[in-house]
Amino acid sequence: MAEAAQTTRIPLVERVLEANDEVAAANRAELQRRGIFSIDLIGAPGSGKTALLEATLRALEGRRHPAVLVGDLATRRDGDRLARWCDKVIQISTGQGCHLEASQVRDALAQIELGQVDLLFIENVGNLICPVGFDLGQSAKVGLFSLTEGDDKAAKHPYLVEAADLILLNKIDLMPHLSFDRRSFEADVRLLNPRVPILDVSATTGEGLDAWIAWLDR
Amino acid sequence: MAEAAQTTRIPLVERVLEANDEVAAANRAELQRRGIFSIDLIGAPGSGKTALLEATLRALEGRRHPAVLVGDLATRRDGDRLARWCDKVIQISTGQGCHLEASQVRDALAQIELGQVDLLFIENVGNLICPVGFDLGQSAKVGLFSLTEGDDKAAKHPYLVEAADLILLNKIDLMPHLSFDRRSFEADVRLLNPRVPILDVSATTGEGLDAWIAWLDR
Repeated sequence: MAEAAQTTRIPLVERVLEANDEVAAANRAELQRRGIFSIDLIGAPGSGKTALLEATLRALEGRRHPAVLVGDLATRRDGDRLARWCDKVIQISTGQGCHLEASQVRDALAQIELGQVDLLFIENVGNLICPVGFDLGQSAKVGLFSLTEGDDKAAKHPYLVEAADLILLNKIDLMPHLSFDRRSFEADVRLLNPRVPILDVSATTGEGLDAWIAWLDR
Repeated sequence: MAEAAQTTRIPLVERVLEANDEVAAANRAELQRRGIFSIDLIGAPGSGKTALLEATLRALEGRRHPAVLVGDLATRRDGDRLARWCDKVIQISTGQGCHLEASQVRDALAQIELGQVDLLFIENVGNLICPVGFDLGQSAKVGLFSLTEGDDKAAKHPYLVEAADLILLNKIDLMPHLSFDRRSFEADVRLLNPRVPILDVSATTGEGLDAWIAWLDR
């Protein structure tokens, strides 16, 4: 029975992805036309996506003009946290949805005065798997891993690593309390994506954030 | 376009879930017939599912007769880790699949001599969202959170908390190094699932494992 359902499933998933890709292309064209650099930030639940964005918005204050879209199944906690640092934050509630789709980004962007914006952060739903397949129209995909997840997570999530334009390794302040093999993590990344930059950061202590901000400014 | 695809999508998802439920019911009947208590262990990437199972298998050695199924997109690292403590371990590679399905459990069980088994652990793919909707035929769903993910994760993943028969809060050994509000976490759980037990554990130090083992023995 499961196999029968599976065979009819594939063409439909393709149709959904095709429809998503069309909307993503329109998002991308609109963002490029306006000169807005946009980031799809993908990481596991609790990897520190919101904390990283809080620290980033603080560091950019008065110099760049960011907007933030943030996806969660439930609650507006992340949006509330980010709204302290940025006046253009939209919380997207996905219900049972495990990833953001391009149409949600399009609808959220329609609520923002984009004339004032030069940088867009899209904090995806906390999930290392499903968000990878859905183009949102972003300029760059950033994969966020954290030390506390263990050094095997790049190898176990090859599709994210392959698709990433940048890998951030967060919570490096906790290194003394964990057994995390940094070289093994990097070796796994290199097998999948030989040239992607890997930046070590701590959203909590601010360590490494300069390199991340410099990457954003480039 | 996305909306059009969405409307045709719902009946198909239902068909897939129905087919899954049929296989899950057969799994459940077979496991019950054999007196095998089975657990679907659901947690984020890096929450410590494999570490918890390693410690659990060690604690049960010589007393219970466990088998383990472990799902991952890629690599057999978890299976190899667990095979040191248990001679009945099956690694299920899901490719791009974000959750285990009942048919994968059925096929894996067919590879195990179940006459010897009285306890089955199913380590689901690291994901707090997608695995919740797919019944595998388990006796109990265990939701594993870890301190390093932050105290807001129960509220942000209501479907898992509602469905869980037990909540494990792992990595409590790291409490001194984190700002985790244990009472806030528990309050969020209680709003969603008033009577679910919450056990604090550390797979690394062994703290709290006695209560978890006692729960398994009940």
